[in-house]
Amino acid sequence: MLQPDDLYLDHNATRPLSADARAAMEEALNKCLVNPASTHRAGQRSAQLLEEARAIVARTIGLDPRAVVFTSGGSESNQLAIFGRFPPGRPAHLLVGSTEHSSVLGPARALAARGTAVDVLPCASDGTISPETVLDKLRPETALVCLMSANNETGVRHPLEEIASELIQRKVPLHIDAIQSLGKEPIRWREWGATSLSLSAHKIGGPAGIGALVLDRNAPFQSWIPGVEQERGRRGGTPNLLGTLGFAAAMARAAQDSADRAVRDLFETSLKQVFPGVQVNGEGAPRLGNTSSVSFPHQDGRVLVAELSRRGVHTSVGSACHAGSATPSHVLRAMGRTASEVRGSIRFSFGPEHSQSTIDALIRRIREAMAALSAPEKIA
Amino acid sequence: MLQPDDLYLDHNATRPLSADARAAMEEALNKCLVNPASTHRAGQRSAQLLEEARAIVARTIGLDPRAVVFTSGGSESNQLAIFGRFPPGRPAHLLVGSTEHSSVLGPARALAARGTAVDVLPCASDGTISPETVLDKLRPETALVCLMSANNETGVRHPLEEIASELIQRKVPLHIDAIQSLGKEPIRWREWGATSLSLSAHKIGGPAGIGALVLDRNAPFQSWIPGVEQERGRRGGTPNLLGTLGFAAAMARAAQDSADRAVRDLFETSLKQVFPGVQVNGEGAPRLGNTSSVSFPHQDGRVLVAELSRRGVHTSVGSACHAGSATPSHVLRAMGRTASEVRGSIRFSFGPEHSQSTIDALIRRIREAMAALSAPEKIA
Repeated sequence: MLQPDDLYLDHNATRPLSADARAAMEEALNKCLVNPASTHRAGQRSAQLLEEARAIVARTIGLDPRAVVFTSGGSESNQLAIFGRFPPGRPAHLLVGSTEHSSVLGPARALAARGTAVDVLPCASDGTISPETVLDKLRPETALVCLMSANNETGVRHPLEEIASELIQRKVPLHIDAIQSLGKEPIRWREWGATSLSLSAHKIGGPAGIGALVLDRNAPFQSWIPGVEQERGRRGGTPNLLGTLGFAAAMARAAQDSADRAVRDLFETSLKQVFPGVQVNGEGAPRLGNTSSVSFPHQDGRVLVAELSRRGVHTSVGSACHAGSATPSHVLRAMGRTASEVRGSIRFSFGPEHSQSTIDALIRRIREAMAALSAPEKIA
Repeated sequence: MLQPDDLYLDHNATRPLSADARAAMEEALNKCLVNPASTHRAGQRSAQLLEEARAIVARTIGLDPRAVVFTSGGSESNQLAIFGRFPPGRPAHLLVGSTEHSSVLGPARALAARGTAVDVLPCASDGTISPETVLDKLRPETALVCLMSANNETGVRHPLEEIASELIQRKVPLHIDAIQSLGKEPIRWREWGATSLSLSAHKIGGPAGIGALVLDRNAPFQSWIPGVEQERGRRGGTPNLLGTLGFAAAMARAAQDSADRAVRDLFETSLKQVFPGVQVNGEGAPRLGNTSSVSFPHQDGRVLVAELSRRGVHTSVGSACHAGSATPSHVLRAMGRTASEVRGSIRFSFGPEHSQSTIDALIRRIREAMAALSAPEKIA
């Protein structure tokens, strides 16, 4: 589906399936996988494969396998983590970052509609949220703080270690959406002080439709839906065994397959030389090494993404999740970007296959796309 | 994982992957599937594959593709269907059958904990629920009735057409868990009068981790989590594209691949000749043609399942979902079975690969297993 000279710069949306994950799933398709909950021999063999996959996912990031709950992906992991901390009938308070993914903000709004007090943490113009901002909104009844380890649109990272040390002192649980960090930087579970953490396979070359929620064994967690039988009572439904095997294979390699930060940095330097008016969103903040959110003045990002796609350059306006919608990025708005800056922003997210030699071709195609957009026949 | 002479009689837990589904997924593993929400060319090609799969799933059961929401499986479909009908703050009433799957009863209990009035519909001793029972519990504020088309443990079917005609007159929505019917009997969406319907791929030879919620376009439905971007705003999260392609391939064949009712009937007749004390649960009721729930007097079903498994016969105690737990079947308890009858029950669920010649071998192995269990060395 990708042509040989395509430049796929949408790794934050989905990383194409890795060779390891493909091989693991091809092999699994020829095993007779059945329901791991079945107690007969075939079921128990399936359960064994599931537990082997869990052990690989857990150990790759230095965790006990019992901490890992398999889910249908990052969105479900975030939902479980949030709803699981707000049992009905207890007054409580939730704090979420303003730049969180919609799968965190959506459950927060659902809780607010049910009467939970919810506060949204404002970010600075570089996209970061400071420990002071968190402490300022904290209440005695705060039951959870939700912050992502790295933003999906800008790559910006909050000072999680500092925030965590304040929260640990106050015994306030911290849920970290680490979906964009996985495969791009080390998952620092302990240092980040997380009580729960979301991961997703398709961001690291595994298949879509499988993810994990990591739960600190010392922080009691209960499924918010009673009567759940699978995953030690923490998540219901027959597990996606094929997906877990692809996830484990991708995990085993993900740590070695990070994109090269020097490639992204060269891209930004080169781009600003060619188009002096561009702005890199979150430029001054600590950021993932593979992500560039760039605002092109007087452009419509959606039109530019389409024009680049015609030239084999695959990028995205904000997150893929609302790429098709007309809603402007809530992340860039939270950072105080003007409507025009938000409209003109697109995201380039690099992968391990890119090198400094990628950048020449990329810059050339961006120039061609921009020239095509300003040509008179396009205006007519 | 299954040996050539194994008898896999656990189709209601998971049907082993069909050749069609395996071929479709092997092919898909070699395409570059990316995020269908991405607007670039690679994303749009993935979106096209997703919509082709949706069209196959929908048309196989005579529906408009727009009615089909892909989910991570039957459990999530049931959750979405139920929570979607109970927005916070509105007083409402839910009716659920006593023999429903835990993925229906769990959400019902979650709603009850949040203050929704919930009534459980008792069943007759044959497992059926009558229209009168439903009407008796109906209230002006009833927002949803949940009934399964066929029970996973016993195969028993309620008189859905009659119940539906009463509910339609009163404009009360009906959610039908049709997970066990798919591939075993026609899905009679219109005749059953459903406003929503749950399906699961791994019960028909598709992969686990993918299912569908079918929604009547005339019954307004809103995601219970705000801000959902995928599946026309009805379900969040990057879709499991590989799974949908396996699901569609399995769907295209499922209607032709039903188990032969005559095989199951021969099994029950033969079993009762050999063991005159056995009882078939729900025997007199309309039932799926592939399912036998059998109670062996003075036996422990879990021990018998293990003994049969040693002989290559794969069966289950009640549903696979709580096969590992010590909780006795809530389905058989609702049917008024004694504790001893429940403990001695196991489920045989046949598939299209079984024929009348299967039954000889099956009965022989059951005799061997029972003999081994009553042998003195087992007691010592």
